[in-house]
Amino acid sequence: VKNYPGLKVALVGATGMVGREFLPLLEKTKLPIGSFYPFSSGTRRQTILFRGKKLPAPGVDFKTLASCELVFFASADEVSKKFAPRLARAGVWVIDDSSAFRLDRNVPIVIPEVNGDRIRPSHRILAGPNCTITGLAVAGALLHRKIGVKEVRLASYQAVSGAGKDALLEFFSQLGAVSASLKKDFSIAPALPKLASRALPRQIALNVIPQVGGFDREGNCGEENKVASELRKIWAAPGLKISSTTVRVPVVRGHSLAVWLTLSKAKPLSAIRAILNRTPGVSVKGGMDYPTPLDCAGKGGVSVGRLRLGATSKEICLWIVSDNLLKGAALNSLQTAEYLWRRGWLKARP
Amino acid sequence: VKNYPGLKVALVGATGMVGREFLPLLEKTKLPIGSFYPFSSGTRRQTILFRGKKLPAPGVDFKTLASCELVFFASADEVSKKFAPRLARAGVWVIDDSSAFRLDRNVPIVIPEVNGDRIRPSHRILAGPNCTITGLAVAGALLHRKIGVKEVRLASYQAVSGAGKDALLEFFSQLGAVSASLKKDFSIAPALPKLASRALPRQIALNVIPQVGGFDREGNCGEENKVASELRKIWAAPGLKISSTTVRVPVVRGHSLAVWLTLSKAKPLSAIRAILNRTPGVSVKGGMDYPTPLDCAGKGGVSVGRLRLGATSKEICLWIVSDNLLKGAALNSLQTAEYLWRRGWLKARP
Repeated sequence: VKNYPGLKVALVGATGMVGREFLPLLEKTKLPIGSFYPFSSGTRRQTILFRGKKLPAPGVDFKTLASCELVFFASADEVSKKFAPRLARAGVWVIDDSSAFRLDRNVPIVIPEVNGDRIRPSHRILAGPNCTITGLAVAGALLHRKIGVKEVRLASYQAVSGAGKDALLEFFSQLGAVSASLKKDFSIAPALPKLASRALPRQIALNVIPQVGGFDREGNCGEENKVASELRKIWAAPGLKISSTTVRVPVVRGHSLAVWLTLSKAKPLSAIRAILNRTPGVSVKGGMDYPTPLDCAGKGGVSVGRLRLGATSKEICLWIVSDNLLKGAALNSLQTAEYLWRRGWLKARP
Repeated sequence: VKNYPGLKVALVGATGMVGREFLPLLEKTKLPIGSFYPFSSGTRRQTILFRGKKLPAPGVDFKTLASCELVFFASADEVSKKFAPRLARAGVWVIDDSSAFRLDRNVPIVIPEVNGDRIRPSHRILAGPNCTITGLAVAGALLHRKIGVKEVRLASYQAVSGAGKDALLEFFSQLGAVSASLKKDFSIAPALPKLASRALPRQIALNVIPQVGGFDREGNCGEENKVASELRKIWAAPGLKISSTTVRVPVVRGHSLAVWLTLSKAKPLSAIRAILNRTPGVSVKGGMDYPTPLDCAGKGGVSVGRLRLGATSKEICLWIVSDNLLKGAALNSLQTAEYLWRRGWLKARP
């Protein structure tokens, strides 16, 4: 859709896992998109569907990006690193889903309902958070502001879509092989097929993998380090103590977190629940109900359940689920753009 | 196999998930089993294979049980409750895999390499631990003895076989449906089929379920309460602070635990690792390697990896995997029987 009055918007990585989630959101947004330029970060010729029309998604063309008011990046770090700084210098708003700029001092990690007030009109590059920490960053934001969070421990149950297309297709192939094997041996003690893995470090079908990203010297993997440094930055809590074990599970979409929070003050659960109920972007399940990734797949917000007291004083437990491709990526980026628009900082050029 | 010199041994629940794991172990054990009586806890006529022979596994016959020196229970709590006390009064050793007697003051929860010394020759009923806590009870035992464990936090990744036959067959049916659906729609954004669940509280295929057992008033589920009370009893640590979130994952066998331990004293990781390496029943993975449930399925011991420092002082993180049907059930029971035999407390009657 091109050359109508309104914003000129580009999406880099339009044919990827996150990119394709953007398209229906961009069709529904109240942002006045006049022209839309989808780009593929790869070189293969691809097309996408937008507002009922087939659009080509060619390789990135910097001139077109620079002519836009807003560019979303939903591709690899390298692509963002290559183009975003030049676009920023040209005055283009860049909302980046990669991790390329998240720890840059001059770039805020933005979750609009949590820290939209961190954006300055002089900013041009805004980073979206890692999809794993998004759920806690949203769910714990008001608790942190009202009471204070001192310590965080979390174990993740991360969907395969978070590892990208190749990992997801590998998972589906493995599921096919497992199912074929079960057809021959449908018993309570079937042979468990051992299947090749290339995109993920181990077989994911019928398994869980306690590794997301590479390991550092201390034995933490990349995702665990992102979770810690990004949460500290998003909450502006440099002294926050945080320890995590990040685990890939055989789920298509929806990241779940088992979380322990140690608060600055002891509070009754009813007070905690009241704060959670008022937290923007969060829906709280009570009683016997709780969210699962399958319930939350394709849905926008962050869902919290299993609120309980922990084993030590001032400590609570939470179970948090959010769709890693939506609130963890595409939706959050779009909400950031809508925030810029509402503030009057994102405008169509004359 | 009947009427040979040696021990008379019965197995109640021989056709169940755990029961069928007992059979190859009983074939290989050094216990001098003269006669073996498998029973089914159900009423359906079933047979089992033992030492190459097809044996009937009829419904439980108390007289036959009472004529044995040793009876293993691998069935529901009610079955153990009905028969075990009468067998104990008749002098029969009962090794019970159900949770019926675990919190009974007169019954130890036995993991031989951890607390075999808790068994008195006057005991007759010995309980095996819950399969979820077994991994940590074994892996942390020497750390607790040498340094002291003050606080435990754990998130579990529990295999479907732990929920029994019906749950496992439900999982396999769901996998078949998922695979059929993927055949029609093999893309990076396939429809995620929503499938009926009866044995488990939610669909398990392509999902995780943060509920194992029913909920109490505080919001803890049954498994979380078992984990806490059983670990305190096994380690003889009544003041241990423990908080857990137990989660079912789409894995066939092998329970995994993401664990945080707060110790009584700060120790360097090298010292912790040295203690883990000396802990009976534990194999420690180092460097970039870690266990997954698929690696550990069908294997006997407890496997530990991802040893790291936690976020607060005196705190460490561990990833622990063990086969819930073996060390978490059948194997541990057999090891308990072998321990009794070595101590000379389990003897063939004249």
